Amino acid sequence: MPTIFELGEKESLRRALAPLKPTEFAIIGSGDDSALLKAQSGSYLVSTDTMIENHDFRKDFSSAFDLGWKAIATNYSDIAAMGGVPTAAVVAISVQADTELEWLTDFVRGLQQASESLAPGSGIVGGDLATSDLSFISVTAFGDLDGLNPVVRSNANPGDGLYVGGTLGKAAAGLALLKHPDPQFARSYDELVSVQLRPTPPIQLGKLANEHGATAMMDISDGLSTDAKRLAEASGVKINIESSSLLGFQAVLEQAALSIEASTLPWVLHGGEDHSLLATFPSDKPIPKGFKRIGSVLAGDPELTLDGEILQTAGWDSVTGNQ
Amino acid sequence: MPTIFELGEKESLRRALAPLKPTEFAIIGSGDDSALLKAQSGSYLVSTDTMIENHDFRKDFSSAFDLGWKAIATNYSDIAAMGGVPTAAVVAISVQADTELEWLTDFVRGLQQASESLAPGSGIVGGDLATSDLSFISVTAFGDLDGLNPVVRSNANPGDGLYVGGTLGKAAAGLALLKHPDPQFARSYDELVSVQLRPTPPIQLGKLANEHGATAMMDISDGLSTDAKRLAEASGVKINIESSSLLGFQAVLEQAALSIEASTLPWVLHGGEDHSLLATFPSDKPIPKGFKRIGSVLAGDPELTLDGEILQTAGWDSVTGNQ
Repeated sequence: MPTIFELGEKESLRRALAPLKPTEFAIIGSGDDSALLKAQSGSYLVSTDTMIENHDFRKDFSSAFDLGWKAIATNYSDIAAMGGVPTAAVVAISVQADTELEWLTDFVRGLQQASESLAPGSGIVGGDLATSDLSFISVTAFGDLDGLNPVVRSNANPGDGLYVGGTLGKAAAGLALLKHPDPQFARSYDELVSVQLRPTPPIQLGKLANEHGATAMMDISDGLSTDAKRLAEASGVKINIESSSLLGFQAVLEQAALSIEASTLPWVLHGGEDHSLLATFPSDKPIPKGFKRIGSVLAGDPELTLDGEILQTAGWDSVTGNQ
Repeated sequence: MPTIFELGEKESLRRALAPLKPTEFAIIGSGDDSALLKAQSGSYLVSTDTMIENHDFRKDFSSAFDLGWKAIATNYSDIAAMGGVPTAAVVAISVQADTELEWLTDFVRGLQQASESLAPGSGIVGGDLATSDLSFISVTAFGDLDGLNPVVRSNANPGDGLYVGGTLGKAAAGLALLKHPDPQFARSYDELVSVQLRPTPPIQLGKLANEHGATAMMDISDGLSTDAKRLAEASGVKINIESSSLLGFQAVLEQAALSIEASTLPWVLHGGEDHSLLATFPSDKPIPKGFKRIGSVLAGDPELTLDGEILQTAGWDSVTGNQ
């Protein structure tokens, strides 16, 4: 199998992107100076995110397929968090020069399968390839609101309920299992590990929440505590989380936590990367299936409490690397 | 001045992006999960490109401002090359953790000034910041066709004339001057160096060419010979460049070439990074001001000739690093 260096950028990209299917939202896909995409409702959502080797991923944990999948999942989640539907993505990747073409092909397969599975009809419409000593992946994703208004994070109102769509703590548990010196634990809890490596954010809940009148919404990428505090600050409200409502999220992590002598509550409260949706809904409206109530929006200075007590945030900062 | 590591990602980004002006095409700018952009004509152009330290740029040559400027200029050029007008860009950047906030602020100033100067009304609508040992900058730019059709690179017809909008060889000359051991040469030819560091592609010529019926167009990023050959291959035509038509491009480089014992023709034929436009127009139509004829499109197997003789391409491949 040739390396990317042996083939050069253009030929490597051509071969790796060849299996990509045409997508319904692309008028012109990859291969020209720019792609041309449809914006059926006269506007489009844009989100960008970068994953850096040894910082956001480790090649001994993640396969090329995993990385392609995760790159799409995390960016599509930001589109869903605005109440929209993902339509397409462009991907810039830089890898070591001795990387085999097969690695790149698997990566593109991960991109393709994630886009098909998480947002049917969407697809990859452009790529850029380079080489460097350190690998990184930079994705920009696009979405459509289908004529709805965007759901921003700054519009939560006192009296709203606080809801989560998707899982909490599973990706953090998966990472703890992967990092454990004894590899048998990661093998024993395959589902948790797979949420860390190949997250499946509840993309379809984004538009559903929008249709049901969600007042504010965001993607939980850095942990519930960190992101709930951001929502409180953006909206100028107080947010209280009820610990009793988290028991269900903790229960599914209990066995894994026991086996590696960890605790479930920190995973659920502070663990990032499940890419679930945090949304607020008015109390007088029906809540769409898939969202679980975990607390309330209150009047007052922007702060985050757990059962009425100030909750210290402990999420991820991509610069300081602090969790 | 604090470093980015001391401030963390969110605070560094907040401070660096604070001076950004609202743009007319953004309904929601940076700060939420996604930006929301207008697509007035029901579609939008997308282009993505990455610059990597010591591969696409050197920090001893380029200031932070220069890098911000160049990142926008090179991406806007890909939008113009489709016959569109740039509207916005999102920027992911990773820098060393000990980078001062001032560097990031200067970089953002470069982004902002380039977007304002090259495409008035456009602007930066989102950013992502991380730290790594090696710096890189990944930009995705957007554009609008204002209801026109896109000008692809695959539609040149035998009988068309081949035209260049913008300069040829200046960026390559600038790079040669910068690399010369004696720094006085770079200081003596400031205009050439500035085309390398802060290119000013003829963005407005893209839409103008589209309005005047250009049959094919592309951005000359990797050198005239490499990119003209790509256009020939994409369109399935033969392209002949007339050397006499290049004399004007060579003349303005003559003094600099003499001073460092270099030749002007390789710069003009093979030098990348001027980001000028290569376009084909039917012979019976008026050619818009700003384009200069340099050759012809002929029937035959896709190949590139100079005065009828096969011309070897010698452009840049971003993976192999071969010039």
